[in-house]
Amino acid sequence: MTESVVEVVRGQSVESQHRVHIAIAHAERGVVASCGDAARISYVRSAIKMFQALPLVEDGGLDHFGLTDQELAVCTASHNGEPFHVTAARGILRKAGVSEDALACGPHPPMHSAAADALARTGHPPGRIHNNCSGKHAGMLALTQLKRWRIDGYHRADHPLQQRVLTTLASWTGVAAESIEIAVDGCGLPTFALPLDRVALACARMAAATADRDTASARVIAAMTTHPEYVAGTGRLCTDLMRVTAGRVFAKVGAEGYYCAGVPERQLGIALKAEDGAKRASEPALLAALGLLEVLTLAELDALAKYHRPVVLNTRGERVGEIRAVLHLQQRNA
Amino acid sequence: MTESVVEVVRGQSVESQHRVHIAIAHAERGVVASCGDAARISYVRSAIKMFQALPLVEDGGLDHFGLTDQELAVCTASHNGEPFHVTAARGILRKAGVSEDALACGPHPPMHSAAADALARTGHPPGRIHNNCSGKHAGMLALTQLKRWRIDGYHRADHPLQQRVLTTLASWTGVAAESIEIAVDGCGLPTFALPLDRVALACARMAAATADRDTASARVIAAMTTHPEYVAGTGRLCTDLMRVTAGRVFAKVGAEGYYCAGVPERQLGIALKAEDGAKRASEPALLAALGLLEVLTLAELDALAKYHRPVVLNTRGERVGEIRAVLHLQQRNA
Repeated sequence: MTESVVEVVRGQSVESQHRVHIAIAHAERGVVASCGDAARISYVRSAIKMFQALPLVEDGGLDHFGLTDQELAVCTASHNGEPFHVTAARGILRKAGVSEDALACGPHPPMHSAAADALARTGHPPGRIHNNCSGKHAGMLALTQLKRWRIDGYHRADHPLQQRVLTTLASWTGVAAESIEIAVDGCGLPTFALPLDRVALACARMAAATADRDTASARVIAAMTTHPEYVAGTGRLCTDLMRVTAGRVFAKVGAEGYYCAGVPERQLGIALKAEDGAKRASEPALLAALGLLEVLTLAELDALAKYHRPVVLNTRGERVGEIRAVLHLQQRNA
Repeated sequence: MTESVVEVVRGQSVESQHRVHIAIAHAERGVVASCGDAARISYVRSAIKMFQALPLVEDGGLDHFGLTDQELAVCTASHNGEPFHVTAARGILRKAGVSEDALACGPHPPMHSAAADALARTGHPPGRIHNNCSGKHAGMLALTQLKRWRIDGYHRADHPLQQRVLTTLASWTGVAAESIEIAVDGCGLPTFALPLDRVALACARMAAATADRDTASARVIAAMTTHPEYVAGTGRLCTDLMRVTAGRVFAKVGAEGYYCAGVPERQLGIALKAEDGAKRASEPALLAALGLLEVLTLAELDALAKYHRPVVLNTRGERVGEIRAVLHLQQRNA
């Protein structure tokens, strides 16, 4: 197996390299292509937030609480904490009648530096609402209210809400719930260890499911691709990829070098993990894979160049290198 | 070859892993142990600043300008930009009669967050003097003055100063100067692509050279180990490792997961590179290697636990994992 890597080049030489593992699946045909170890198991982190948002939609939470598409989009977000993200997350909580204090995610400054600076200037410390996962938590609290489950401990693996998320993910990936190892995510929720190829298949199935506009999947993906700025924010790949492709691709980043994407018109799903957890690797690798699959045109790759082939600058502002993905895509079932 | 890795563990599983390459050399016997590919070539970045500082000492710059040991230590530093670092770098420039504007390194906020916050509160933007390499640049400017070389372009590879650094490094590593590939470092200086085993040998030779207190090496290493806070700063491994070992070990970090260290009493040198450039890997790996070599005692490793086995916390402040080095040290010439 020839390894697929993302190279960090300085001058004429590769200074550092990141190994990447990618599974690409078709909704009906299963895995159609891969790089590295497509069966590698790793925690999916925030890359599967579109699946974590499904139960709220399936159970009628959108209509019950009158949630907007923007609010649904922020349920799937690892957001920047920009003002409109905070407004959307607060909107969900207000409509669901839950206090901000109920959020189980911990506080951290907004990921977007201008938003962080603006908050710092107010003298207020960052709150739980600024956590990049606050939309997901708000959506989960809304479902908890709808189902009349207890609010307390809604983030714990044994709570009915998290059991529901687990069975949802088990169903889409085809992995038995009881065999899925669980750890604690950055925001306190359960995260799930799954093989890349099963996650890719789940994304492919979700991509295929959007063909029927009445499905919960279609509503979630439409919210993400119609309002991509709510899924991440200014200067973020998820947002810009969905924007540049006008929603032909949906994409969701996760911590530790994880990425999920789906291509509804081709019923394709992608799951990607940088072995060492580096985001500077997962982003070029995702775009390179989408390029090799001819999902992205050269013009689209060019529009996303700052993510696809980032330039390495030094403190003098000089271009001293670049980052580039070198993928060896193995076709299967061709 | 069993790979040596640094594992990032979440819950019960390895979430991400970093491959590391380490060469350990004795001044007389050459490479005595290794992990991964000991001949791997990579840019040495700031990890060889003690060699970059040698010419100033060899040519009598310390006495000529009346530089203090603290000022010599900051010449070898990737410093935090804390007030005492800035004072030391400015002291060198003042004594050498060079303006701060002559520094070729670009501005960046102090690496130490409290120092960065304090600077931000003054309303002054970060200057070149806050660049973590400003001490190295100041020392190079002092030598440039001493030798009456032109100030302009002192940072370029073709300047006599940088040629002198290159031949110094070639001499210590035993690699022909003309075969050393050069790129541009983060601060604008040349950086050199060298095999780990040759860099480890250079560090071992420097460790051995400290036995004679009159050598330039002995003066540089004594400055580093006597004033370790000037080499890095608050909450930094280089500083704390030299402090905890009371100078039995000297150590210098470089960008992109590089580390150099030396053990004078054993005439040992170490060069280490995390393949993907991650500092979160190079630090545990360096300490684990020093532990396996019995350079560090268990008590010393314990005192350095936050670098040796860092805890992974989530935004709720919960312990959700840890980082640990799993090294397979191959002994040679045993």
